[in-house]
Amino acid sequence: MPEKSQTNLDESTDAVRQDVLSAARGAREAAEQFAAATRETKDALLAAMADALSRRAGEILDANEFDLTAGRESGMSEAMLDRLKLTESRVTEVASGLRTVAGLPDPVGETVRGNVLPNGLELRQVRVPLGVVGIVYEGRPNVTVDAAGLTLKSGNAVLLRGSSSAARSNAALVSILRDVLVESGFSPELVTLLPCTERSSVRHLVTARGLVDLVIPRGGAGLISTVVEQATVPVIETGVGNCHVYVDRAADTDKARQVVINAKTRRVSVCNAAETLLVHREAAETLLPDLARELSGAGVTLHTDERAAEAIGDAAPVTPATREDWDTEYLSMDLAVAVVDSPEAAMDHISRHGTGHTEAIVSEDVSAVRRFTTRVNAAAVVVNASTAFTDGGQFGMGAEIGISTQKLHARGPMALPELTTTKWLVWGDGHTRPR
Amino acid sequence: MPEKSQTNLDESTDAVRQDVLSAARGAREAAEQFAAATRETKDALLAAMADALSRRAGEILDANEFDLTAGRESGMSEAMLDRLKLTESRVTEVASGLRTVAGLPDPVGETVRGNVLPNGLELRQVRVPLGVVGIVYEGRPNVTVDAAGLTLKSGNAVLLRGSSSAARSNAALVSILRDVLVESGFSPELVTLLPCTERSSVRHLVTARGLVDLVIPRGGAGLISTVVEQATVPVIETGVGNCHVYVDRAADTDKARQVVINAKTRRVSVCNAAETLLVHREAAETLLPDLARELSGAGVTLHTDERAAEAIGDAAPVTPATREDWDTEYLSMDLAVAVVDSPEAAMDHISRHGTGHTEAIVSEDVSAVRRFTTRVNAAAVVVNASTAFTDGGQFGMGAEIGISTQKLHARGPMALPELTTTKWLVWGDGHTRPR
Repeated sequence: MPEKSQTNLDESTDAVRQDVLSAARGAREAAEQFAAATRETKDALLAAMADALSRRAGEILDANEFDLTAGRESGMSEAMLDRLKLTESRVTEVASGLRTVAGLPDPVGETVRGNVLPNGLELRQVRVPLGVVGIVYEGRPNVTVDAAGLTLKSGNAVLLRGSSSAARSNAALVSILRDVLVESGFSPELVTLLPCTERSSVRHLVTARGLVDLVIPRGGAGLISTVVEQATVPVIETGVGNCHVYVDRAADTDKARQVVINAKTRRVSVCNAAETLLVHREAAETLLPDLARELSGAGVTLHTDERAAEAIGDAAPVTPATREDWDTEYLSMDLAVAVVDSPEAAMDHISRHGTGHTEAIVSEDVSAVRRFTTRVNAAAVVVNASTAFTDGGQFGMGAEIGISTQKLHARGPMALPELTTTKWLVWGDGHTRPR
Repeated sequence: MPEKSQTNLDESTDAVRQDVLSAARGAREAAEQFAAATRETKDALLAAMADALSRRAGEILDANEFDLTAGRESGMSEAMLDRLKLTESRVTEVASGLRTVAGLPDPVGETVRGNVLPNGLELRQVRVPLGVVGIVYEGRPNVTVDAAGLTLKSGNAVLLRGSSSAARSNAALVSILRDVLVESGFSPELVTLLPCTERSSVRHLVTARGLVDLVIPRGGAGLISTVVEQATVPVIETGVGNCHVYVDRAADTDKARQVVINAKTRRVSVCNAAETLLVHREAAETLLPDLARELSGAGVTLHTDERAAEAIGDAAPVTPATREDWDTEYLSMDLAVAVVDSPEAAMDHISRHGTGHTEAIVSEDVSAVRRFTTRVNAAAVVVNASTAFTDGGQFGMGAEIGISTQKLHARGPMALPELTTTKWLVWGDGHTRPR
């Protein structure tokens, strides 16, 4: 099938394209063999990878030092450098993450449903690997190993497209993983690092129809929309979270306070952090002054509408919210605050500005909660709890490859079963279908 | 998010675009309200639609007569005219299809999984409607009503893009459905027929990101690839089936004969019909002469490789297979036939030429069957039964909106649950997440 994005190919991008397609072909072939690997074999493989990472930590740290030096020289911020940095203990964590994944149940082979049809045909829908999964990501080199672990455990091959700032670190990690693949009798093409210096490699990856079964972009809104716009292979969008907490008239003030503080300040750079607080007008005067003081004391800048500013009064400094604030995923110590007239007004606001990630209500009113959970359309709708719980680990999945904010295939935290597809097995005894 | 396909808009297509986007916006708004409709309400709606279709059959047949006349004048084939033709009894069938769907369980609200987390949070993943579903289809006007019934039952709004040859019939049907929506107190925008005379309306539908949640193309390979290539909204590919039957060395000859005859000749125009027969070399001489005679007698043209031709000998006329035959979904009384050396050779052939729809093995050898069911990667893998069973009705789903040949979200026959997504409901009591 022709590809959408083949204009303006120059020679360099054509070479990149050949690299990507050849990696994808290798991955497809390797994945076909690997699909039937038993859980025993896969778990042993992940354990051997964990051992090798610990044993060869020196190589990894040397490569990482090279990336860090390049980052410092190019003026990378301290926060970025910290995300890039690997230490002995971070390598140990990454290795232990692989052992955790090895300990999780194998999704492959699970019977999702099954029955015997009236004519005696036996029908079973079973999980099988997707095939070749592409991951496009930024920053942290630990994603390289985490993503490889999850895709291998679920029987897939993986094409990794990391950021150029972590090029050496990622190369060192992948080289170790591939050595273990070969030592364990598997094709090294099950794990491939794609060229990261050319932007076009993303395009070639996401247009490799027939070779790549799924691409998951992990990163900021810019990365995700680049992937979605160019892709002709299936994509699962992850992670943009403009999450709201709505505090109802019937909220318990203590619970509201706890939930809002936790949802905003626990970690601000994550997609499940709250970005907007909506307060029922009848709760505004009792709740907002103290809560604003506490938030402000914790370093949060409050971007308020007029009614919220009025309720807060002198309790804390505020800055007037602009129209953009309601649509902004701050990922920082900022919070937009508005006063609303009813649960329905809060839901209307969320419907206009939400990104379908996580939306919370704090209320003791059963009817308000029922209306909110029924009508609000998001991957997770949370009642009287922090938005921070939307997470594969917290949900008991044991791991997470991202949080899907789309509706098809997977919605919310994605772990091992979400990296599989199914096939129907139909067993008969010479059965034919009447005309 | 910008759209991919906005080049070369001329004025007429711009008007079409406005029509499509305005229908999509109306559908989205209507879908938001409709998502919470109870099963009772939805079943009553479908029953009222069925009644109205029967009551107003005259209008439908008049409109259909207009399409038929236009078709005859433009030189449409008898087969095409027959697919387009509605009769009193076909209208009754369509209405009774709606009643069947009304009788099926409502997928919305079903708890897919749920548990209580160690910290006491209650977690439930429940099915909710997708929102707005687009269907692009050809030929038969009954698809208009079938698709509307399934999408409404699963709580969605539907945008229908039928073929221009059925324009009047589809308009009559949709007008009746919309009248019933209004009489039942629902928005008529839950069911909208898009302009069908302009090709560009498909493009505008499949690029309406943020308004349309899913597009399902139903039709031939050309229609499907047009949709997939242009789409920026999620698409589920359906129906291209280059299905194989592999008859193993250890096959029971009678079962093999029954299965092959049924898979090829039951109905040739459907996607689950067999297009290629692969026979183990040790079964070729016993099986092929009689089977070829029977197939040929039923009107099937055999496209054979050299070894198959040799095994068939004088038993039936054959024509040498070209390279294209192995990749052709005939949808006609044609069958490609090859002799292979082993189950593995059959699987290699299927891996190269299959479309991931339905692949069958006929064998009494447990090991060969196990290898085949494990390695063959398709929506359905069938043992000792006809490929014709891959069908929502046959699988006991009560209905079918298409057969997905892709791996994400749904694979194989799609019915009501496949027209939903899920959301996580998280209930706490002031729960916060530790740092």
